[in-house]
Amino acid sequence: MNDNKITIGMLGAGRIGKMHAENILANFPQVDLKAVVDLKLDFEWAKKVGIPIRSQEITAITDDPKINAVVITTPSNTHVEMIKVMAGAGKNIFCEKPIAFAPDLIRQANKAVEKAGVILQVGFNRRFDTDILKVRNAVESGTIGHPHIINMTSRDPKRPNLKFIPDSGGLFMDFCVHDFDMIRFLTGYEVEEIYARGANLVDPKIGEFGDIDTAVLTLKLSGGAIGIINVCRETNYGYDQQLEVFGSNGSIAAQNRRPTSVKLSCKDGVFLDQPFYSFIERYKEAYIEEINEFIKCLEADEKPSVDGHDALEAVLIAVAAQKSLILNQPVSLKK
Amino acid sequence: MNDNKITIGMLGAGRIGKMHAENILANFPQVDLKAVVDLKLDFEWAKKVGIPIRSQEITAITDDPKINAVVITTPSNTHVEMIKVMAGAGKNIFCEKPIAFAPDLIRQANKAVEKAGVILQVGFNRRFDTDILKVRNAVESGTIGHPHIINMTSRDPKRPNLKFIPDSGGLFMDFCVHDFDMIRFLTGYEVEEIYARGANLVDPKIGEFGDIDTAVLTLKLSGGAIGIINVCRETNYGYDQQLEVFGSNGSIAAQNRRPTSVKLSCKDGVFLDQPFYSFIERYKEAYIEEINEFIKCLEADEKPSVDGHDALEAVLIAVAAQKSLILNQPVSLKK
Amino acid sequence: MNDNKITIGMLGAGRIGKMHAENILANFPQVDLKAVVDLKLDFEWAKKVGIPIRSQEITAITDDPKINAVVITTPSNTHVEMIKVMAGAGKNIFCEKPIAFAPDLIRQANKAVEKAGVILQVGFNRRFDTDILKVRNAVESGTIGHPHIINMTSRDPKRPNLKFIPDSGGLFMDFCVHDFDMIRFLTGYEVEEIYARGANLVDPKIGEFGDIDTAVLTLKLSGGAIGIINVCRETNYGYDQQLEVFGSNGSIAAQNRRPTSVKLSCKDGVFLDQPFYSFIERYKEAYIEEINEFIKCLEADEKPSVDGHDALEAVLIAVAAQKSLILNQPVSLKK
Amino acid sequence: MNDNKITIGMLGAGRIGKMHAENILANFPQVDLKAVVDLKLDFEWAKKVGIPIRSQEITAITDDPKINAVVITTPSNTHVEMIKVMAGAGKNIFCEKPIAFAPDLIRQANKAVEKAGVILQVGFNRRFDTDILKVRNAVESGTIGHPHIINMTSRDPKRPNLKFIPDSGGLFMDFCVHDFDMIRFLTGYEVEEIYARGANLVDPKIGEFGDIDTAVLTLKLSGGAIGIINVCRETNYGYDQQLEVFGSNGSIAAQNRRPTSVKLSCKDGVFLDQPFYSFIERYKEAYIEEINEFIKCLEADEKPSVDGHDALEAVLIAVAAQKSLILNQPVSLKK
Repeated sequence: MNDNKITIGMLGAGRIGKMHAENILANFPQVDLKAVVDLKLDFEWAKKVGIPIRSQEITAITDDPKINAVVITTPSNTHVEMIKVMAGAGKNIFCEKPIAFAPDLIRQANKAVEKAGVILQVGFNRRFDTDILKVRNAVESGTIGHPHIINMTSRDPKRPNLKFIPDSGGLFMDFCVHDFDMIRFLTGYEVEEIYARGANLVDPKIGEFGDIDTAVLTLKLSGGAIGIINVCRETNYGYDQQLEVFGSNGSIAAQNRRPTSVKLSCKDGVFLDQPFYSFIERYKEAYIEEINEFIKCLEADEKPSVDGHDALEAVLIAVAAQKSLILNQPVSLKK
Repeated sequence: MNDNKITIGMLGAGRIGKMHAENILANFPQVDLKAVVDLKLDFEWAKKVGIPIRSQEITAITDDPKINAVVITTPSNTHVEMIKVMAGAGKNIFCEKPIAFAPDLIRQANKAVEKAGVILQVGFNRRFDTDILKVRNAVESGTIGHPHIINMTSRDPKRPNLKFIPDSGGLFMDFCVHDFDMIRFLTGYEVEEIYARGANLVDPKIGEFGDIDTAVLTLKLSGGAIGIINVCRETNYGYDQQLEVFGSNGSIAAQNRRPTSVKLSCKDGVFLDQPFYSFIERYKEAYIEEINEFIKCLEADEKPSVDGHDALEAVLIAVAAQKSLILNQPVSLKK
Repeated sequence: MNDNKITIGMLGAGRIGKMHAENILANFPQVDLKAVVDLKLDFEWAKKVGIPIRSQEITAITDDPKINAVVITTPSNTHVEMIKVMAGAGKNIFCEKPIAFAPDLIRQANKAVEKAGVILQVGFNRRFDTDILKVRNAVESGTIGHPHIINMTSRDPKRPNLKFIPDSGGLFMDFCVHDFDMIRFLTGYEVEEIYARGANLVDPKIGEFGDIDTAVLTLKLSGGAIGIINVCRETNYGYDQQLEVFGSNGSIAAQNRRPTSVKLSCKDGVFLDQPFYSFIERYKEAYIEEINEFIKCLEADEKPSVDGHDALEAVLIAVAAQKSLILNQPVSLKK
Repeated sequence: MNDNKITIGMLGAGRIGKMHAENILANFPQVDLKAVVDLKLDFEWAKKVGIPIRSQEITAITDDPKINAVVITTPSNTHVEMIKVMAGAGKNIFCEKPIAFAPDLIRQANKAVEKAGVILQVGFNRRFDTDILKVRNAVESGTIGHPHIINMTSRDPKRPNLKFIPDSGGLFMDFCVHDFDMIRFLTGYEVEEIYARGANLVDPKIGEFGDIDTAVLTLKLSGGAIGIINVCRETNYGYDQQLEVFGSNGSIAAQNRRPTSVKLSCKDGVFLDQPFYSFIERYKEAYIEEINEFIKCLEADEKPSVDGHDALEAVLIAVAAQKSLILNQPVSLKK
């Protein structure tokens, strides 16, 4: 980068896009958030937070040579096209997950990025969570020895709006993809085989769309370890995010985090807070930290630690999981 | 029973047998522990604890009409024979698990018991643990709604002596059989299908015997719920016994129990006790409670809540798990 | 002791006496619980548990040369007299606390014991609790450095029956005496000065008897450390027993113990068990362990670790606390 | 306020001043942080964070009619003078605690504020902590009934630099003043009497300055409840901040917060994170929230919830505590 100043454009400003924009404005004074582009832009919001260029035209970013990086949070089915266009315009890219549901589309996006010589960071926010990093670092440094069993619980507080289901990519692609990335991140191992068992227990209407809402996945990992992921679309008690790496010397686990440490003891029992309600509250700091990583990479002209390759791997696992569910057979991912 | 006095004979007085005998002597003054029979009887121990009849001959029990119940803790491969003989002699039976590894042998034992009109309680001690009972009762009363996911961790502190492995029945038959029983007990559901993934990670010598030391099992249950069991032969930090039943209205979990509640905070961190070291410490009270159930059944002339049918079901699951491991396929248990 | 066999007589068989008797019968096969004496003896109970000699006459114990030890659980105001008589008859003594409310009476009892050359163990059961022992041992071995602050919470679940109040000795003598002993036991320090603040907040009728139901005590200890004890006659959520020793290198704390480790997460919150309801449940094992200590002393002809001197010290602190409450001034205990 | 735009000047830009400035810049886009004044201003920092007016002269704030509010973080002994000057210039004031150690000086500051018709918020940051607010709200809404005992632990991780001690105001004025405010805030009661016991256990050199480093305070509150505060200058395991309000219907407690929820189980034990290391980490959000309150008051032309009266009350308690320590007597605060 020939200039130290990072100038960023936002592509997409829905719920997550606004969160990223506000995080950038509040936490990175060295960054110039110059433009926001959205087909249905909330102009009032964009003005209020103080983004100078507010447009529905993508050229507001591509044609501005000062903008050297973009944050893409447009609808998922546009990600590949947006990455190609932005890479073609020489912009460095942070793109929300998923890049695409089809592995070949991700490969196309990755090629475009490679060809353009820009960076592409993918929004696997959990990799930047303090608790998860502590577990990963302990595993990496050998604290628990050689990993034997990875046990992950990942459950949403409330079933999604049914309108969301048909284009969601399904439970594995939409929801578990984070967990698939986690298991690679925590262990440093690749997934060699997967067996998926799913069920439609939360809402029969989810089943009518051919999707499931509850699943248990067994993953054989390259180092011999076995991974388990259990997921559900609805807990009623908050966002349940627990994970354990158990190994030859012990176990390290990240437990649920709660809004407060307050404990009430009374004649009806002893009560603690529920876990944080959703990913927004639970991974609040992680969303800032992933942008921090992106900015640091821009400043230092370095590759991000999580990129299109990781996006591809997570989606390949999801594809295999889907195949396993249909066949009721373990499916190999070995190349 | 025509007489209120329960008179019990012990068949087998190894480590577990001695424990049961001492538990009976200390906790059930209404019971007369009259005889102990063991081929290699520790006469000194038997005299010290005060059991009047001490013998190496089974007839010391079968021929004594006063003895109306026996506790069998002889080596596992003798259980079926002992059950047949004792049922034939009209004795009510408490038998340690496993009755046998072969389902047909268990069926034979069950038939002998049925024919003799005696009772047979099987030593699934965990069913009598306070924590587990609290979870079961909550599930039964609908506190967490309809069960969706059952997540169980069951791990031993230290690998067994290698000599133990060849005749152990293998990880599923020897170790997981308790977990298979638990999942039926906690949910009231039957196992319809099982997928087993195993690994030999703790000690390569266990693999040389054709056994595994680490496994993850996925179980499809009759009510639609999915069960997970992860097991390992060695934790290095104690006996890891955690279980959760997650359902449509919430989750209920039994966490590890520790010897004390003491917390040390110092410059090196905040330290808690490890979990109890082994099943002996963890299920100390449950071992007494299962005998209490047996005695109450004898006194009230009632059937025990856990019997030969439950023993058979657990073993059928273990057999299916073994088959699944070999085939690397889910195996159906539907009849 | 000229004979290895310990033969014990029970003096008093009310609620606590029965508990001790049953604990002895269940846990110490080497002991012969030969006789029980109580003015209002529950003969049916005594017969059922199998104590051979059942009497309302003290001579059933004093005149029996086989009985070499007694457990005294008669009403508190008879303890000194009973100790004198039993010491005079050459019996070793376990006596429930309090020996007496008046220091001089305790001194008389101690002198009688000393003159007779018997042992006197006092029923400070908490000293034998696993959690408390772990804290004490950590303090003793220097784990937390030099003690600076000792912070104790000791609260009963439900106010006592008002009939109990007039002869109870008052909150300090009846209830806090255990905490006074604890602070000496945990630190190895003596109390040099005490300041008591009390209040009558739970039930105005307790105040009508001149007693208080809530108090906070500040204790200056010989090593320079400061102790705090907060007590209350009613929590509504169980028996609240927490203590912390904080020192130059860290802090060690015994937290409340709960009947189970079960955690329920649902839309209304995350619920844990309440603490054990009363001292009977909380210190169940400690009641057995203190008798174990008594029996071991009898077997080995050794002095018990908690004796009449400790009883005297705890009562001297209670007397000073009472004086402090009246004067609203710190009161010195230095000799 | 004639203009909706809040324009703030910083008076003082040491460690805490910088934190407040950066918090304002990152979290309150509606606020214009226009000027910073410090005798030893770190000009480089001020430029980097983007404060337009950077000066060593107080007139840069007083003479600017656009600036309608100031945040005072100058050395404590200048607070009263600064409040007078700023109130005289019509500026609304947020002032770090302590305003002064002498009650009369605080009264002077309060009078100046009242006369000028500006607002004065005092930096009792803990009042804005999520955990503490949850406890306060539960107490206020009657969840635990009528408060009986308030038990607070407040301990610093490391002894302060000895240079800090002479002008610190002493342990009660410098450190406990927060706890004195807490006890009023949590209960809504006033302190009627206090008894202080102090000790010099952490570092004899602190004693050479006539100060103490460890203390236990007993407070009689207006509603009859009894408060306890135990404090120490050094834990070695982090910033220990625990508090409990125990009442007629139960107990509510804020426990220590930890950086992560990670739990490591291995052969050496089960390890959790230490509490946050210092007030900066522990009350990070509370420092933002107190400024949020200040800005909301400026916007809505309302009085802050914590003001010069609260500052005065906390200092009056500290004065009484100091007197009690010297006299070794309880000291009344009744007016």
